[in-house]
Amino acid sequence: MTFALHPQLEADTLLIGDLPLCRVLLMNNANFPWLILVPRQPNLRELFELEPNEYAELTQEIRSIAEKFSAHTGAHKMNIAALGNIVPQLHIHIIARFENDTAWPAPVWNSGVATRPYKSAESETLIRNIRNITNL
Amino acid sequence: MTFALHPQLEADTLLIGDLPLCRVLLMNNANFPWLILVPRQPNLRELFELEPNEYAELTQEIRSIAEKFSAHTGAHKMNIAALGNIVPQLHIHIIARFENDTAWPAPVWNSGVATRPYKSAESETLIRNIRNITNL
Repeated sequence: MTFALHPQLEADTLLIGDLPLCRVLLMNNANFPWLILVPRQPNLRELFELEPNEYAELTQEIRSIAEKFSAHTGAHKMNIAALGNIVPQLHIHIIARFENDTAWPAPVWNSGVATRPYKSAESETLIRNIRNITNL
Repeated sequence: MTFALHPQLEADTLLIGDLPLCRVLLMNNANFPWLILVPRQPNLRELFELEPNEYAELTQEIRSIAEKFSAHTGAHKMNIAALGNIVPQLHIHIIARFENDTAWPAPVWNSGVATRPYKSAESETLIRNIRNITNL
């Protein structure tokens, strides 16, 4: 089987690019600078289903992206999570949080704040910047 | 400086034991089988602040504990997250989720469900079982 992005992730995100293991996506929600990493392998649900060398690669990609995105956004705190209760395909949230964001200090999921899609100029600039800082 | 557990984590959890890097805690909330890993180092807030070899150790401890706790609990899905918006000391949530738990499919944080502390016999059994499966 080959990798295919889950339709819900396809619908909710914009493409940034591919790292060696993961597809990097921008959540299309201007309320929060929010990236999603998806290992490009079929049928993954849990982190521990990855082979050890792939798991090591994933954790390095998480570290690298989180550190660069934190510096780029000037986040107060990074939120990093693998949940998957609704979308079963393994995906990792990397979210830059600020003390004045619309959900703080609650997690972004179920915050009751309506999703606010990016205007295309906004997302184009952000995606270009993220590609620059991550060499994507 | 030496490591000291944040008072809020101290208040909310029960001690299971120490892995090479992390203290392993049981969240004292019988609604969800919920472990917390805390790297025993002072002044950590973000995953990427760990030195590379310590980060590798942390990710191995996460993998090992999540896989064993998933098998032990028969979880439908594991939720793994480093948030830290309220308690700044770096800590990683490892939560066994079930389709009939009180928050499903929402995340456990801010679920609106009141915390239900374990009865001591319940937590003693659970802690003993977790020590057995994790060699703690």
